[in-house]
Amino acid sequence: MERDGNLPAETADDMSGQGAAPAGVTVVVCATCRDESGSDAHPRAGLLLAEDARRAAARDPQAEIRVRTVECLGNCKRRLSAALLRDGCWSYVFGDLTPESGEDLVAGAKLFAASQDGLIPWRGRPDSLKRGLVARIPPLDLLKDVP
Amino acid sequence: MERDGNLPAETADDMSGQGAAPAGVTVVVCATCRDESGSDAHPRAGLLLAEDARRAAARDPQAEIRVRTVECLGNCKRRLSAALLRDGCWSYVFGDLTPESGEDLVAGAKLFAASQDGLIPWRGRPDSLKRGLVARIPPLDLLKDVP
Repeated sequence: MERDGNLPAETADDMSGQGAAPAGVTVVVCATCRDESGSDAHPRAGLLLAEDARRAAARDPQAEIRVRTVECLGNCKRRLSAALLRDGCWSYVFGDLTPESGEDLVAGAKLFAASQDGLIPWRGRPDSLKRGLVARIPPLDLLKDVP
Repeated sequence: MERDGNLPAETADDMSGQGAAPAGVTVVVCATCRDESGSDAHPRAGLLLAEDARRAAARDPQAEIRVRTVECLGNCKRRLSAALLRDGCWSYVFGDLTPESGEDLVAGAKLFAASQDGLIPWRGRPDSLKRGLVARIPPLDLLKDVP
């Protein structure tokens, strides 16, 4: 639950913004999301989803889809959550996922990586990434000339 | 409704990622969000919210809070939506806003701008930006060293 901003040290410590952002698409999974029972049991459903996504990504290493975990994507009202990020493009957040949604996330990441206009195409998107869309956010540098 | 990726030309055309992102905090309002009636009438409730946020920002020009509009933040299930963006920091999306939430958005933007750790503090956040949190997304360059 995003409440007091307590983040894992590995993300909170480096606010320098130094270094190039990774190329390609990164799948960011909230590893602390609970399953529908709300149980605190470990491993959390979110971590199982992250592991499922890593296995899916590993089946196609040439696609170079990275999977990373964070402690909270702030989407606690819509359970298992993940984001797809690509440098210079809109960012996407999805909810209502399951521990078996890793393949869908990687499929969405591949569509995103191949997109010419920097958007994830609607057509061909796994159903879970249509129904589960929570938000998309434009990159700052796309907004500099927008009224 | 984010469905087929049809975006306003001014955001869709520039995918170059060239040029520095603006400093400070940018409030991004979805200008096509409808009010609770779902009416298509213009001006849309989202545009009214954007205008309200511009007025609030103009009351404190020294804070240098920018307000920009986009056609869709993909958060159509939770009505009026806006995002707060700061270069190199987590991005935040809020929903369940009203056409009068401009002051709250600008208050949140000021908290964000003054934050030392690059997160919007929970304490002091307007209630609408606590209840209305939809998601937060880490910046890509914070993820490069995360497992």
